[in-house]
Amino acid sequence: MRTVEWDYSTGRLQMIDQRLLPVEFRIQSYADYHEVSEAIRDMVVRGAPAIGVTAAFGLALAAQQSTAQDVPGLLADLKHAAEVLQASRPTAANLTWALRHILLMATENEGNVHEMRQAVLMEAQLMADDDVQINRRMALHGAILINDGDTIIHHCNTGALAAVDWGTALGVVRMAHEQGKRLNVLVDETRPRLQGARLTAWELQRYGIPYAIISDNAAGYFLRSGQVNKVLFGADRVAANGDVANKIGTYMLSLAARDNEVPAYAVVPTSTIDLNLAHGGLIPIEERDPAEVLNIQVGGSPVAPAGSKARNPAFDVTPNWLITAIVTENGIVYPPYDINLAKVLKG
Amino acid sequence: MRTVEWDYSTGRLQMIDQRLLPVEFRIQSYADYHEVSEAIRDMVVRGAPAIGVTAAFGLALAAQQSTAQDVPGLLADLKHAAEVLQASRPTAANLTWALRHILLMATENEGNVHEMRQAVLMEAQLMADDDVQINRRMALHGAILINDGDTIIHHCNTGALAAVDWGTALGVVRMAHEQGKRLNVLVDETRPRLQGARLTAWELQRYGIPYAIISDNAAGYFLRSGQVNKVLFGADRVAANGDVANKIGTYMLSLAARDNEVPAYAVVPTSTIDLNLAHGGLIPIEERDPAEVLNIQVGGSPVAPAGSKARNPAFDVTPNWLITAIVTENGIVYPPYDINLAKVLKG
Repeated sequence: MRTVEWDYSTGRLQMIDQRLLPVEFRIQSYADYHEVSEAIRDMVVRGAPAIGVTAAFGLALAAQQSTAQDVPGLLADLKHAAEVLQASRPTAANLTWALRHILLMATENEGNVHEMRQAVLMEAQLMADDDVQINRRMALHGAILINDGDTIIHHCNTGALAAVDWGTALGVVRMAHEQGKRLNVLVDETRPRLQGARLTAWELQRYGIPYAIISDNAAGYFLRSGQVNKVLFGADRVAANGDVANKIGTYMLSLAARDNEVPAYAVVPTSTIDLNLAHGGLIPIEERDPAEVLNIQVGGSPVAPAGSKARNPAFDVTPNWLITAIVTENGIVYPPYDINLAKVLKG
Repeated sequence: MRTVEWDYSTGRLQMIDQRLLPVEFRIQSYADYHEVSEAIRDMVVRGAPAIGVTAAFGLALAAQQSTAQDVPGLLADLKHAAEVLQASRPTAANLTWALRHILLMATENEGNVHEMRQAVLMEAQLMADDDVQINRRMALHGAILINDGDTIIHHCNTGALAAVDWGTALGVVRMAHEQGKRLNVLVDETRPRLQGARLTAWELQRYGIPYAIISDNAAGYFLRSGQVNKVLFGADRVAANGDVANKIGTYMLSLAARDNEVPAYAVVPTSTIDLNLAHGGLIPIEERDPAEVLNIQVGGSPVAPAGSKARNPAFDVTPNWLITAIVTENGIVYPPYDINLAKVLKG
């Protein structure tokens, strides 16, 4: 089962409900693109590559749902649906990239309404299949950087669950493991949503890769005491100068890596690179519901006093000088990023 | 009610059970120093100044419990009890400092067994009363550094609950607030034990100081986006060169403060300064039960997959170059710490 998958027998979109893992493995099914937008917002599905493909399939649902009788009418419905899907989450470049890609293809399509509906679905399916291939290519490039015996700190979840399948940064770890390299992963639990403790730990357990969960606070201790060889994470958007927006906490983790001369690698498909943004300060940062910070419990009891406020930025920006290299499906990009990212985008 | 207090009507030691806050305010009562050692280990009481005074009162209990008929016998019992209490937690300098201080006083005491029992209790009581005075002096020194309108990131709990009363770093915040300065505190929740979300939030709510809880991961975001004026924390041990051992996460927080030219202040009584240790690499770092990392829940469900391992270092060391100044009861110490810490210890 892929993270996100079109069911051709029912014409519905299916997704693993990542809010329930690791306690329960449940598949959710969608026939309405509005519900898909809600599912992205609510993090049924998350991870930049996965939400890009999900949005593309969302447009396939919108094409099915549309009652338009002519091509301009269907295009108008698709554009409206793209706006709804785009509004679900602001930071990931892949969401914008996928929606633009599908809309452009639909605009250029010369068939009738029925053919356009088919074409949108086929293009979304192609994007999903491509995603898996792209991830495997990233993993092969990235695995070169990993040595036998490495201890790796990994932030958030960037595994199969963050993509259609296989994963980005965790895909590199998985590939190195399959190549026979002995690895140990220190899994940042990744507050507030705990994608590390919930999802990355679950994936590593299934892959048979040794791991230990740590509080995000502890990464600096392990780096400073010389116990870590590599730091790996994904990204939600990479600006033209190599600044990286990724899950909140990546910036402080990267500072600690640099302070201890441990390489920090961002692993991203080129669809995450946004050359339209000159630097990371221009990347919109989503601030999510304070309840995500406040709703954890210990021993069945809430942690924070009733009436407490919280702030909950979901991403931060790591400046380019803290990123040792950016691994893509087209190869490994080293500084200067303002020159080399444009090159890698050309393939 | 103080965090730790001798009850003269019963001859027992009373402590606020900090494991239960903010859900329940419960007072625990102790007549056996072994139980006091357990209470320190289990974090019924925590915070370097508080556990120093608790250990001192633990020796007062040991003196009561001792059946020794002569002074050498009582001294031997006290030394044994000091070893038990010392073993409860390894990192805080104050624990060692308090036990040594009481033992030295007992050794120099010229009275009989009964008088020595009284003297140990009196000395522990004096230490508790001194702690409150010392904290208020630290707060007055530190409040000079705080400006009207400041937003402050605060790590862990360093308030009244971390000391006998008043607090260290949070005591500075409280003093500045009482001086009429308008403040906003971003409270690091402080995984894994969540002392920030549980205890610091509880204290700030009672003091009427505006605050918002943030995940520890988010501190870098707020610093980098220019929303923070000061970073404040306590310490469990300060080495002779100014390296600071404090609650896990302090190192990465201090890196982010420095990267954004925001001052980071450690607020400590001089009893936390350990000139016997040349640098922070020599400070013993406690690693606690992995269950502290694994036992959080969301929606009543455990977070990590069953069978997950975890690592749980409780402290990290922040190198001296990241510490803007160290606030003590004798004044504010600036670099070079290897010279100026020795000076401030002389008063």
